[in-house]
Amino acid sequence: MSVVIQFSIFPMDKGVSVNPYVARAAKIIRESGFRYELGPMGTCIEGEWEEIIGVVTRCLEDLKKDCDRVYLTLAADHRKDGNGRIQSKVKSVERELRQEGQ
Amino acid sequence: MSVVIQFSIFPMDKGVSVNPYVARAAKIIRESGFRYELGPMGTCIEGEWEEIIGVVTRCLEDLKKDCDRVYLTLAADHRKDGNGRIQSKVKSVERELRQEGQ
Amino acid sequence: MSVVIQFSIFPMDKGVSVNPYVARAAKIIRESGFRYELGPMGTCIEGEWEEIIGVVTRCLEDLKKDCDRVYLTLAADHRKDGNGRIQSKVKSVERELRQEGQ
Amino acid sequence: MSVVIQFSIFPMDKGVSVNPYVARAAKIIRESGFRYELGPMGTCIEGEWEEIIGVVTRCLEDLKKDCDRVYLTLAADHRKDGNGRIQSKVKSVERELRQEGQ
Repeated sequence: MSVVIQFSIFPMDKGVSVNPYVARAAKIIRESGFRYELGPMGTCIEGEWEEIIGVVTRCLEDLKKDCDRVYLTLAADHRKDGNGRIQSKVKSVERELRQEGQ
Repeated sequence: MSVVIQFSIFPMDKGVSVNPYVARAAKIIRESGFRYELGPMGTCIEGEWEEIIGVVTRCLEDLKKDCDRVYLTLAADHRKDGNGRIQSKVKSVERELRQEGQ
Repeated sequence: MSVVIQFSIFPMDKGVSVNPYVARAAKIIRESGFRYELGPMGTCIEGEWEEIIGVVTRCLEDLKKDCDRVYLTLAADHRKDGNGRIQSKVKSVERELRQEGQ
Repeated sequence: MSVVIQFSIFPMDKGVSVNPYVARAAKIIRESGFRYELGPMGTCIEGEWEEIIGVVTRCLEDLKKDCDRVYLTLAADHRKDGNGRIQSKVKSVERELRQEGQ
């Protein structure tokens, strides 16, 4: 069993630069101990659903402290089998690209 | 405090027609007792974050029973104040549209 | 052939209340003449992909005029057959719910 | 001016393993010449909106050829200023994490 989520969170009431808030969320994710990968538009986390959602909830709780409006998007891909998919999903696409011969 | 989510869930391994699965999720949402609204691309639910996520989790648990791959997307809009936003958000946009004089 | 999108757009640099901007986008969508439905977390539009994306592009162009940062999410469901799905998708789920006998 | 999108596309009628289809989209993105980054849950692309959407459209056109139902999600972050954000967004969060002293 494996869930990979892509997760994005930011305040809507703090102006153009939301970096410090994104970093606070990233810190919570890193400290969770789950496999994760920072990306330009969000962070991927792999684990059990209930645990990952616990991390997402902690991020929201943290931003709520000083943000009046917080927006959050999440996409989850759940598979019965598989593990380490946060790496393998990208690798298998890259492999297919190479097999194309270019 | 108010969270409105837009939530979409479907199996990836059941072919073109995923309606029975979407209906199973809709039934779980309806039975949750939360304010909700079915839409063409997902369902909106309003409530407390932890409770809403509990509903989402039950939907995922249900589909996992007989689906090998489940995809789920969620967007959440959290505001410090406000309630009944599942109705008021649309109404306030409609009001602005009318004030445009057309 | 039918594409239904769910589309959401708002500025990130205008504080908590983004309603006037959402209404500007809604006005552009309404004037496009496509089947659409306002929802609490976004607007659904049905049509041909290239045309719908033209509407989305006009919304972005409009908000860019006075917003320094704009966030936009979009989910699209493309089916080879089908039409009028913006209504039928919800109706078929409601029908399944009724058949459940509750 | 800079738009970064996160983009995900897959067929809903091809069973659990959608890798060959994702790879076809990735190939189209690579050949577009835009800055891009493959991730576990989607691909980020940076460029001008109209051009990026052209790439997304080509991916959809390609999958439509042999898929009866295609699902696509997209999030876009548009900023008036900035360039090379596909790298800098992650780097600035990593920098903030390091400054936390851990």
